[in-house]
Amino acid sequence: MNKTFTASNPATGESVGAEIAEWDQSQVLKAITSAHKVKDKLSKTNPSERASVLNSIADAIESEKDNLAKIANLETALPLPRLVGEVMRTVVQLRAFATLVKTGGHLLPIIDLADPNFLPVARPDLRKSQQPLGVVAVFAASNFPLAFSVAGGDTAAALAAGCPVVVKAHPSHPNTSQLVYEAVTKALESHGLPKDLFSIVQGVNPEITHWLAKAPEITAIGFTGSAVVGKLLLRLAQERATPIPVYAEMGSLNPVFITPTALGEKIDELAKAAMDSALLGSGQFCTKPGIIIIPNDSLGDKFIEQVKTYISQQKVAPLLNKGIADRFREAIKKLSISKGLEVISGISNSDGYGVTPNIFIANWSEVSQQSDLLEEHFGPTSVIIRAPFDQYLTVAKELEGQLTATIHAGKNEDLSELINQLSQIAGRVIWNGFPTAVSVTAAQNHGGQWPASSTHTTSVGIDAIYRFVRPVVYQNFPDHQLPPELQNSNPFKIERVVNSVRTDQSIQ
Amino acid sequence: MNKTFTASNPATGESVGAEIAEWDQSQVLKAITSAHKVKDKLSKTNPSERASVLNSIADAIESEKDNLAKIANLETALPLPRLVGEVMRTVVQLRAFATLVKTGGHLLPIIDLADPNFLPVARPDLRKSQQPLGVVAVFAASNFPLAFSVAGGDTAAALAAGCPVVVKAHPSHPNTSQLVYEAVTKALESHGLPKDLFSIVQGVNPEITHWLAKAPEITAIGFTGSAVVGKLLLRLAQERATPIPVYAEMGSLNPVFITPTALGEKIDELAKAAMDSALLGSGQFCTKPGIIIIPNDSLGDKFIEQVKTYISQQKVAPLLNKGIADRFREAIKKLSISKGLEVISGISNSDGYGVTPNIFIANWSEVSQQSDLLEEHFGPTSVIIRAPFDQYLTVAKELEGQLTATIHAGKNEDLSELINQLSQIAGRVIWNGFPTAVSVTAAQNHGGQWPASSTHTTSVGIDAIYRFVRPVVYQNFPDHQLPPELQNSNPFKIERVVNSVRTDQSIQ
Repeated sequence: MNKTFTASNPATGESVGAEIAEWDQSQVLKAITSAHKVKDKLSKTNPSERASVLNSIADAIESEKDNLAKIANLETALPLPRLVGEVMRTVVQLRAFATLVKTGGHLLPIIDLADPNFLPVARPDLRKSQQPLGVVAVFAASNFPLAFSVAGGDTAAALAAGCPVVVKAHPSHPNTSQLVYEAVTKALESHGLPKDLFSIVQGVNPEITHWLAKAPEITAIGFTGSAVVGKLLLRLAQERATPIPVYAEMGSLNPVFITPTALGEKIDELAKAAMDSALLGSGQFCTKPGIIIIPNDSLGDKFIEQVKTYISQQKVAPLLNKGIADRFREAIKKLSISKGLEVISGISNSDGYGVTPNIFIANWSEVSQQSDLLEEHFGPTSVIIRAPFDQYLTVAKELEGQLTATIHAGKNEDLSELINQLSQIAGRVIWNGFPTAVSVTAAQNHGGQWPASSTHTTSVGIDAIYRFVRPVVYQNFPDHQLPPELQNSNPFKIERVVNSVRTDQSIQ
Repeated sequence: MNKTFTASNPATGESVGAEIAEWDQSQVLKAITSAHKVKDKLSKTNPSERASVLNSIADAIESEKDNLAKIANLETALPLPRLVGEVMRTVVQLRAFATLVKTGGHLLPIIDLADPNFLPVARPDLRKSQQPLGVVAVFAASNFPLAFSVAGGDTAAALAAGCPVVVKAHPSHPNTSQLVYEAVTKALESHGLPKDLFSIVQGVNPEITHWLAKAPEITAIGFTGSAVVGKLLLRLAQERATPIPVYAEMGSLNPVFITPTALGEKIDELAKAAMDSALLGSGQFCTKPGIIIIPNDSLGDKFIEQVKTYISQQKVAPLLNKGIADRFREAIKKLSISKGLEVISGISNSDGYGVTPNIFIANWSEVSQQSDLLEEHFGPTSVIIRAPFDQYLTVAKELEGQLTATIHAGKNEDLSELINQLSQIAGRVIWNGFPTAVSVTAAQNHGGQWPASSTHTTSVGIDAIYRFVRPVVYQNFPDHQLPPELQNSNPFKIERVVNSVRTDQSIQ
């Protein structure tokens, strides 16, 4: 008989729900091969059918909104309103992909008709579109039990691309995961599609990661989590007989640079907003500002005084699981003995996986010697770094790749050098705002240079779909043997680029 | 003093040109850091300026057309008319990228304006475009001394993207490389741009590969060559402190499936055309048909008779260098002793690096047990595989990833299962044609599943540019601090997607 495990309520330590059976290797491999066998059932759906499937999944999840938020709240201790919002973000993501897929835009059809006069040699008829990769393995994150989990961004993007998905459910919220799984498969079946197109794997056994990454039928991996596991997946993927892409999002410091002028204009607002962003979701956001750079002048002193006052009153919800809480306490202990570091603590929360928010203050001259201070620490902490304004660019040049980088500046400040440097390392550069909260839109980019991400792609927003497709070109094919999106009659009535001109017309 | 090496004429074995100085480590690293220092000079050019630079490079190369073809002919023994054509393909590639870059299309600007009513939460102003990665290392191929070499497809794509390039010149054609280098840098300087934006590294020392792949300033690698070196580059890139993408094209069998009906309709034409494609450029094309699948019936017997007659009259030009010739002879020797294999030989060419064309014939039942027969062998050879027509799909399922896969079928044959299977493994599927000759167009895809390519991207055609850019999004930025392509006034007058609508208008 299989082993079992149980979810815990971080606020009380009590167990949540029934015992969950741990999947063994044969079950995991069967889920993968079963998905592979039926993959054409999804890949061959036409744009409006696939959009309709995505919308049905969204509807099925939305119909469980209150139930999902309630169970996720028990399993994560994240606040109920935030979880209701997260259900809606999950639903909105699926619908955004449905909107894209319905237009056929994701197929990117490009047609170059035969041209005997093309130079330097005659051109055959060439018709290219994007085709789904095949079965995708998604590793769910702990910190967004819905939007980055079972039916989160990676899953929505892969399904939208036409790929079956096997999700490694996060063991911190197995009951939430099961409920989402049921919603997704119910929606698939309502369209006459096999439920094998979608599975979740439950378990705490680290071998599951290896089984998924090594299975020959897996064609790509979507991952959000620690750098340790992200790098393991990259290694496993590269060692396969057929290496596959790993889209890993592995954490980020999300530096926030505050200029003296910005402090002069809005110091009260900034101190509070910076702390609110750092402590949001108990500091368990991938876009949490992990370092905040402020001037080492009297305005900087005043900023710190305000932070001290504010933090001393702050208490955060318990962390998501015992592992995160343990690692957080260990990191704080280690940081606390760093050279020349001042610690400001909030209110202790000793319930369940509770921790105390801790903000550190350091001078840049000391930080640059201690690499710990430039590492991500998951949980309610941030390092405030004091530097002369004329050294901000130097600080920026010392940083590794980031998901986001933020500048708070005065209205007429020109910071082109700093902006240029930050745009070299970060996927999103923010002006007079904070990095937490990520809109799901076409223009979004959630991904940054290594080690924030393993590739130059986004995991949020509709461009995420292009991670799970590959181009195939057909040369001189008889019309009826082409994929429909490339046929002369343009049966999907979608926009295509024909001889370099964008058109939704058929080809005569 | 540096070591030197000299090019050889494959047709005569005589040395070509002066001694070439071998680059040492400090010279290689200096080329890279110098390129890194000036990278903004290229990345900040506006679309029309950059297009103009690319056109000037094309013009400079075209003006040396006869000279280049003459020197390349001495260094490679490839026929002069083919080399003149290859100069023109190189020129056409550069001009195609210029045409794209001039429209600003490669910037893919997407703008989502702030929307307080956006659900589930208000949306900030988000503006995304594609930005160049930084210095790119390109490893030139031996078999296309112009179109896949110093200013070939990878270099043209990287420069078009706004990336400086350091090329590892192929030691088989150093004088051709030097001449192209001079044309490129002359063109850069004519636009007031520093020549450090472009360098070639000369040498036969295998350490050069390591120096280039490990240099921290290198942001991506473009490679065309053997699987051994491709896999080495992938490993080196992954072991860096900051891993980088490697776009490696590592060879392909390019299977050609000929149905009984096709043989019935055009057997004479097919036997000759298949052999012409296999022997083109002395069989040194990455799209050479390495296996040809024919029926094991009387039509198949007749096809083989025709191949025998034709091949016995064929002689090919010497191979590109001694290493290729030695490896070819070794492979043929090994293949010749394979079980149940028949060998048809052409006319021996013992001059310089000359070889004899060899075509093998085998039954599928024997092939499937001998993996050598399903490996690429660079040079004038191909394996004709005989199989019952109802096993063609089985053969297709045994194949690894391919650049191309070809079907010769009768006019009304429906082969959707075979087409579907081949489109899963190949980047280009060809109907009633041959894979050699690759058009440089928007719809082209030159890349296939592993091990043909290391990524799902193309190295030929204008989509190759997207390998060397990454998305960056700006959130709530003051208009004048945005990159020009994202500013309200749309100073480049380019097409952008604004709130999901494609437009070249400014934002009011």
